[in-house]
Amino acid sequence: MDITIGVFDSGVGGFTVVRELKKLLPDQPLIYFGDTARTPYGTKGHKTLIQYAREDTRFLLGHGANLIVIACHSAASAATSALRQEFSVPIFEVVSPSVDQAIALTRRKVIGLIGTRATVTSGVYEDAIHSRLSGARVYSQACPLLVPLVEEGWLKARETRMIVKKYLRPLRDRQIDTLILGCTHYPLIKGIIQEKVGKRVKIVDASAEVARAVYSYIKAGVQVSKDAIGEDRFFVSDLTPATQGVARLFLGSQVQLEMASLGCKG
Amino acid sequence: MDITIGVFDSGVGGFTVVRELKKLLPDQPLIYFGDTARTPYGTKGHKTLIQYAREDTRFLLGHGANLIVIACHSAASAATSALRQEFSVPIFEVVSPSVDQAIALTRRKVIGLIGTRATVTSGVYEDAIHSRLSGARVYSQACPLLVPLVEEGWLKARETRMIVKKYLRPLRDRQIDTLILGCTHYPLIKGIIQEKVGKRVKIVDASAEVARAVYSYIKAGVQVSKDAIGEDRFFVSDLTPATQGVARLFLGSQVQLEMASLGCKG
Repeated sequence: MDITIGVFDSGVGGFTVVRELKKLLPDQPLIYFGDTARTPYGTKGHKTLIQYAREDTRFLLGHGANLIVIACHSAASAATSALRQEFSVPIFEVVSPSVDQAIALTRRKVIGLIGTRATVTSGVYEDAIHSRLSGARVYSQACPLLVPLVEEGWLKARETRMIVKKYLRPLRDRQIDTLILGCTHYPLIKGIIQEKVGKRVKIVDASAEVARAVYSYIKAGVQVSKDAIGEDRFFVSDLTPATQGVARLFLGSQVQLEMASLGCKG
Repeated sequence: MDITIGVFDSGVGGFTVVRELKKLLPDQPLIYFGDTARTPYGTKGHKTLIQYAREDTRFLLGHGANLIVIACHSAASAATSALRQEFSVPIFEVVSPSVDQAIALTRRKVIGLIGTRATVTSGVYEDAIHSRLSGARVYSQACPLLVPLVEEGWLKARETRMIVKKYLRPLRDRQIDTLILGCTHYPLIKGIIQEKVGKRVKIVDASAEVARAVYSYIKAGVQVSKDAIGEDRFFVSDLTPATQGVARLFLGSQVQLEMASLGCKG
């Protein structure tokens, strides 16, 4: 059976995952849904996130996806179990592959995590690391300003550098040796993060890790598509010129965004 | 007839309007709805904002409000006309009273506006000023980072001061003599804004202006409540500890937030 990959995210940040998927699986058909009408997810509560993730998944399945990638760390942290209970398709998400990689990389078992408030509060990363690596210490830092800074396009601004430094100081003080970038937006400022956390710290890019996991799965079980069966499609629930600008920032090229309602209006 | 004031906003920023209303009308019953499940509105598109504003208004009317205050500048900019066509209750909003006050204060007819991207893009402030003050020049600046900075609680941080300065520089260069704070969050950093835009610039606080407008209306037409008819109620569509923290920041005191669905879930 041919696989159509369905990727959802709170907005267009998940394009960092798409970019990595396209490197590994350039011809595999892909449907994207970015819930820009309700973005961001990182400030929302647990139950609300489960509800949103369920709606996003249904949208993708309804458009032909038969493998789901939760590109949003906040949604992955809150909703993965609920989605796996409800839907029978394979569901990949950004947390587990990042944890795997962090465990593989850490030498002193001192791991740092940065993410949105929802991701950090959920404790999902800590739980996953502790359950698989005894004696590990995990230090987390919510960084609510990094997403708006990236979306403002201030990727090299002095203010961004100062704020990254401020957020990372507690993790640096704890002498972490590995840092998980627990948010789709952070790969765009990976250089600054590396500089401010210290050059010796290993950085885990969750967007790349989940793409590798999907690639392994598809390669092991089914034939990788060599011919595009259809065009990739990129849906968003709200479309503004700013959204298109951010999409370009993330994908590095122009992409046709289509507006789609979740059928839950009015 | 007794008036129950219904106030809605994208989140808890509208509490700056509530605070001003309570100064003038301490015993007037009030219902608040903050759409924290879909916050912020400032990044969303025109049609989406009309839909959200309509749903928020229906919620308030359904809970007994018979006068609506649109506390959110983004929603006011996009949706005021649509709401007035659809609903027969009086609808107040933050734009018109701010424009009135700016026109009253400006001497050289050079007015600045800061707000979210949605508010600035809408052009509603410019149109309103130009239609009423011939020869006026209006300079607008979207400041997407100020809301997250305020919500992070960095009200006096060095980073906040730098970013405010950066955003205000173009307006300062234009030698504005009056500045409209076109977002509910900005009164919390009014001191920094005043400092960075220059001490001589007159600042219009939209939250205070809309409260004055509502006060005049109620005072002119109906008896101002002297006895509380019921408790004020504060609803939000998503409730997290962070939301409660931000609410406290805005109202200056603890407030009981109630979770409420808009009845639009999957």
